[in-house]
Amino acid sequence: MRARDLGIIIGTLKPGPLNAITDVRGVLVGHATLIEGEGPLVVGKGPIRTGVTVILPHDWDPGREPLFAGSHTLNGNGEMTGLEWVGDSGLLTTPIGLTNTHSVGVVRDALVAASVAGRNEVGLWSLPVVAETWDGYLNDVNGQHVRAEHVFEALAAASGGPVAEGSVGAGTGTKAFGFKAGIGTASRHVGKEHGGHTVGVLVQANHGRRERLMVDGVPIGREITRDEIAGPDLPDDTGSIIAVVATDAPLLPQQCRRLAERAGLGVARGGGGGENDSGDFFLAFATGNRSLRAEDDGQAPISFPLQMLNDDHISELFWAAIEATEEAVLNSMIAAETMVGRDGIAFHALPHERLVEVMRRYGRFG
Amino acid sequence: MRARDLGIIIGTLKPGPLNAITDVRGVLVGHATLIEGEGPLVVGKGPIRTGVTVILPHDWDPGREPLFAGSHTLNGNGEMTGLEWVGDSGLLTTPIGLTNTHSVGVVRDALVAASVAGRNEVGLWSLPVVAETWDGYLNDVNGQHVRAEHVFEALAAASGGPVAEGSVGAGTGTKAFGFKAGIGTASRHVGKEHGGHTVGVLVQANHGRRERLMVDGVPIGREITRDEIAGPDLPDDTGSIIAVVATDAPLLPQQCRRLAERAGLGVARGGGGGENDSGDFFLAFATGNRSLRAEDDGQAPISFPLQMLNDDHISELFWAAIEATEEAVLNSMIAAETMVGRDGIAFHALPHERLVEVMRRYGRFG
Amino acid sequence: MRARDLGIIIGTLKPGPLNAITDVRGVLVGHATLIEGEGPLVVGKGPIRTGVTVILPHDWDPGREPLFAGSHTLNGNGEMTGLEWVGDSGLLTTPIGLTNTHSVGVVRDALVAASVAGRNEVGLWSLPVVAETWDGYLNDVNGQHVRAEHVFEALAAASGGPVAEGSVGAGTGTKAFGFKAGIGTASRHVGKEHGGHTVGVLVQANHGRRERLMVDGVPIGREITRDEIAGPDLPDDTGSIIAVVATDAPLLPQQCRRLAERAGLGVARGGGGGENDSGDFFLAFATGNRSLRAEDDGQAPISFPLQMLNDDHISELFWAAIEATEEAVLNSMIAAETMVGRDGIAFHALPHERLVEVMRRYGRFG
Amino acid sequence: MRARDLGIIIGTLKPGPLNAITDVRGVLVGHATLIEGEGPLVVGKGPIRTGVTVILPHDWDPGREPLFAGSHTLNGNGEMTGLEWVGDSGLLTTPIGLTNTHSVGVVRDALVAASVAGRNEVGLWSLPVVAETWDGYLNDVNGQHVRAEHVFEALAAASGGPVAEGSVGAGTGTKAFGFKAGIGTASRHVGKEHGGHTVGVLVQANHGRRERLMVDGVPIGREITRDEIAGPDLPDDTGSIIAVVATDAPLLPQQCRRLAERAGLGVARGGGGGENDSGDFFLAFATGNRSLRAEDDGQAPISFPLQMLNDDHISELFWAAIEATEEAVLNSMIAAETMVGRDGIAFHALPHERLVEVMRRYGRFG
Repeated sequence: MRARDLGIIIGTLKPGPLNAITDVRGVLVGHATLIEGEGPLVVGKGPIRTGVTVILPHDWDPGREPLFAGSHTLNGNGEMTGLEWVGDSGLLTTPIGLTNTHSVGVVRDALVAASVAGRNEVGLWSLPVVAETWDGYLNDVNGQHVRAEHVFEALAAASGGPVAEGSVGAGTGTKAFGFKAGIGTASRHVGKEHGGHTVGVLVQANHGRRERLMVDGVPIGREITRDEIAGPDLPDDTGSIIAVVATDAPLLPQQCRRLAERAGLGVARGGGGGENDSGDFFLAFATGNRSLRAEDDGQAPISFPLQMLNDDHISELFWAAIEATEEAVLNSMIAAETMVGRDGIAFHALPHERLVEVMRRYGRFG
Repeated sequence: MRARDLGIIIGTLKPGPLNAITDVRGVLVGHATLIEGEGPLVVGKGPIRTGVTVILPHDWDPGREPLFAGSHTLNGNGEMTGLEWVGDSGLLTTPIGLTNTHSVGVVRDALVAASVAGRNEVGLWSLPVVAETWDGYLNDVNGQHVRAEHVFEALAAASGGPVAEGSVGAGTGTKAFGFKAGIGTASRHVGKEHGGHTVGVLVQANHGRRERLMVDGVPIGREITRDEIAGPDLPDDTGSIIAVVATDAPLLPQQCRRLAERAGLGVARGGGGGENDSGDFFLAFATGNRSLRAEDDGQAPISFPLQMLNDDHISELFWAAIEATEEAVLNSMIAAETMVGRDGIAFHALPHERLVEVMRRYGRFG
Repeated sequence: MRARDLGIIIGTLKPGPLNAITDVRGVLVGHATLIEGEGPLVVGKGPIRTGVTVILPHDWDPGREPLFAGSHTLNGNGEMTGLEWVGDSGLLTTPIGLTNTHSVGVVRDALVAASVAGRNEVGLWSLPVVAETWDGYLNDVNGQHVRAEHVFEALAAASGGPVAEGSVGAGTGTKAFGFKAGIGTASRHVGKEHGGHTVGVLVQANHGRRERLMVDGVPIGREITRDEIAGPDLPDDTGSIIAVVATDAPLLPQQCRRLAERAGLGVARGGGGGENDSGDFFLAFATGNRSLRAEDDGQAPISFPLQMLNDDHISELFWAAIEATEEAVLNSMIAAETMVGRDGIAFHALPHERLVEVMRRYGRFG
Repeated sequence: MRARDLGIIIGTLKPGPLNAITDVRGVLVGHATLIEGEGPLVVGKGPIRTGVTVILPHDWDPGREPLFAGSHTLNGNGEMTGLEWVGDSGLLTTPIGLTNTHSVGVVRDALVAASVAGRNEVGLWSLPVVAETWDGYLNDVNGQHVRAEHVFEALAAASGGPVAEGSVGAGTGTKAFGFKAGIGTASRHVGKEHGGHTVGVLVQANHGRRERLMVDGVPIGREITRDEIAGPDLPDDTGSIIAVVATDAPLLPQQCRRLAERAGLGVARGGGGGENDSGDFFLAFATGNRSLRAEDDGQAPISFPLQMLNDDHISELFWAAIEATEEAVLNSMIAAETMVGRDGIAFHALPHERLVEVMRRYGRFG
């Protein structure tokens, strides 16, 4: 179940066929979901409600063939490893991993191991990009249950088809605006007159205060209050949101960085505020230039040819990223079902019928 | 006429008594408005529809007594001088000037002159903060009609009372979303449990595409279209927005920078997208620490005492900046009246009754 | 007279034929030098020891044909306008102006006027890059004697030949390490195996404390002390340094930014420390990609082809920028002659023979 | 054996009693050194030449009592986790870990575990700062031999006394300028007239090309060439350098960031160039303000008092960081003994007598 299945359409641009980040050709997504145990928290035992999501920017080793990328941090209370090299070189040289806050390291080192294993060379190095949100309301996050094998499992599962949303992978234990949330995705297509490119977004949504939730401009959080459906999270605890933006446009690194920042505007339109305890990290990469070799293999040319999107057409991509992010967050909530985690704590699903009813009252659906 | 006069209330926090940036004690605002001539454009002659707005962060020379400040640029297609020193030192050491794009220099040098005149010292230097938007649809911007005397006039007019909005000062010739806009302001008060501080915002609004205009989440731009009320601006030309955020909270420079970035979230909620041809600059300063001497006068101590707002309370200020920015933009449009400029080009006022009517249709006003 | 005329050779890379920024084909440099009056300072009257230097990145309007560029600020106590758009778009869209601190505005607006005059279009805007250092020890800087006509004079004088160094243009009234300094330049050529590119640097040197001056690693400032040759500047007042780095390599914006930062390493090798009262701004641009249209003229393609230097070869350019900056600073001092300014204050030339004598004592010149 | 034991004195400021980062009161350093096996590389078996170094900013949990901090990246080809939160909040909230490139994750997660273990609270999160350089010339870096227990060992060993230098901890397998290097440290004291503060630096040196090595301005690398003493590293492979700068001055975050950048100037003076394949990360923290609570425990005040060093005195700290970094790099080489690693590869010690002999020839030692 997704936003459009309820008749909720964010913005005016047309989605791609899957309305997912995988509409950007070559992008693969894989999840490993860890759900185990129930009852009282015993650190190191569980209950476990977490996972790993990987995004492969193309179906080949990005260590051998990097892509241009850029990032923006709206609020830095979190982690996305590898950003310094992305920022300085403009290159994404690894798959992107998402997980919980206290397992970033194991995912990072496992991505190193996967990169090393695939390339039998002594002089290699790898600087993976791994981000997180904190899923400790439901999950034994301090137990650090993610292991390297879960990363390999997510890599092996990666595919270019429809993307599972809600409580899967790195979104298994996350929530948004006091409702159960998780992974969400959406995409937009820009017109031929602007290049005919696709922008896809995948979010790990774990952010937001209930009373601020807006759906397409409608103040849902003021209508479906915590009195109606409790969120067990502290009212002023706003978690984090990670957004990965992919496009097949031939963007240079500074254009990717600008695109990444627009994801934050989509978050804002949904009611996010980049709160102090939120880690709001946005990474954008572009597949429109390939054959950007990170390292000299003795045959690399001194300089090589690229394409660059004329900036006169980038605003359309900006808007695509804004719309797709707003919808991806919404999808993460609409797809998620109520989940009970450690100590019996439950995050409830956003009730679809109530949502539709309120939106109708606010003049939507004709 | 302001948004609240029409019954439109943005957000949930309470405004200050003036609902203006001047609710932050000590902040002064002054305008100089240049309106002269009509008819065909003759570069260097007119017609002139431009001006200067100055914001004094406190009623004393900030060169002698700077304040902590920080900035964020959402899209950089514009100018705000002085940002490098603000960013590196964390200090605002001059009044802030706003004007049109091609007159930034004269305003900057005039603020230097004003600073020098007030302090009879040989070794002085001054690095003023001056920002702009492009008012060339109505104004002979290439004629560079602003002169130093207009800056001195705005400085002399600066006061801490109600702030004139709409087509005044640096907003004389600007537009937003294809409607006439200009200067707008708003403020918010945060509760005692978060420090009881005030956040005030002043914008020079010149941004936005009609079809994206949202008022409190209602898609006004899709309802009051260019077919109904033409905007003479190119549909894909989105101008710029400058926001100055003031607070009396004791923020450190990095906290000011974070506050500044939230102004962009308020812009996003109103339909702004940080488009490519937009210069979206946000500067925040805090009056909660004084006696930060920029230069040693032989009596300055080696280190001095400060207060810092606990970050646990900063999210409330973030939200205040978001709400106040969204409302300030709206106020800039509601206050502005239709204006005819060079070559008979007109930007029309946002029609108040139609606005209210559409909002009612979208479930607002109870 | 230049460093190499004294037998002092910085580093190991080979300079271009002019050992100047103009070795990068298409780069033009023009100066306007203002020297007038002597005796006691009367603000607004003089004496005047200042000027304007312009650098045209190629012999055509960069507003119509921008270049990739990037900047780095080592210490921000100064001004370089236009940096936000350079940073966000990666494009340099105007000539670069250098002048004194209190005349940045007039130079900026004059570059706007020059750009507007050359292009008879209503919708134009221009965001010039203008930097400065403070020449108030010798010059009536508060008198703001630079006028638009001086900018036009420098533009008209711009040429691609040898560059006048020392007390000319924006370097007329500047000093470094307590000696008279001013404009300096140098260049380096990197080997064919790295692309055969040229890196040229031009500095406006106004920085440094005497005791820290190093020439090719020799502690000249500890040998030729203020007791021997007085510097009238305050011992702990370290002024500023601006460096403009040009290259014909096909660098992308992020590569330009990285190149710019290396100018600071050259400054460090000469004894600079990025002191608190210093404005140390470095801008790099690359002529290796042309036809980067800033604006759509209706014929611009949606995307266009570029070349990018393989990062495997960029370290050689980094080193070229380090060496050229170190030598350009030295050239600015070796070229400058003693100058007397306001109130009879004199900055003395670095004595060539003493310099050579000390360097010999430290094992140089074989 | 250290630089000063050979009579080599970098700069003019006075070191602290230990000439080490631990001269900053409360700073603790601990190493875990992994040396195991010899002969041919078998990935996953060894030989092992690596380790972990931890720096505790004070002798208490920084999660409960953070310090102001800031960072600068000269070249981003590496990793320092946690920088986004340091940059956004201005706070260092964990110990700092150093290790090899492919073990950053395990060190990061182990620091999380250590933080969690020390604080029995459910809602905790931890965002450790962990940096690295690549020690794969000597070490089986792809074998990822560092384990959590090594991190705990380094934490347990942390002390405030003299710091072991050379091939220990995270420096076990590193090299600089083609010589064996490793961990190095130094400190400087600034005069009472500037506050009487201490600046300490610790480096993990793994950078530099032989021919560029400079010792106090003397071109040692051009005198003691690879022909005389081979470096097995590729001549154009320049590794990385991490510098941690500590001070007891009451610096605010932006002042810490500026201090961090000056470490790069010290690297430059020694011959470093921020080369493309180098990860040059500098982190500075200040102990001069305490009681900066990261999280509200219900008793935290809404705002709290601080001290701030007057910027008029910061240049002296900048210079202290420059000198201490230059000397720390040198100490890392002088302390290190020749080491043989995987596949029989050896990095040789910098020969002390030759060093002294060359420096004498260049006019040093009177």
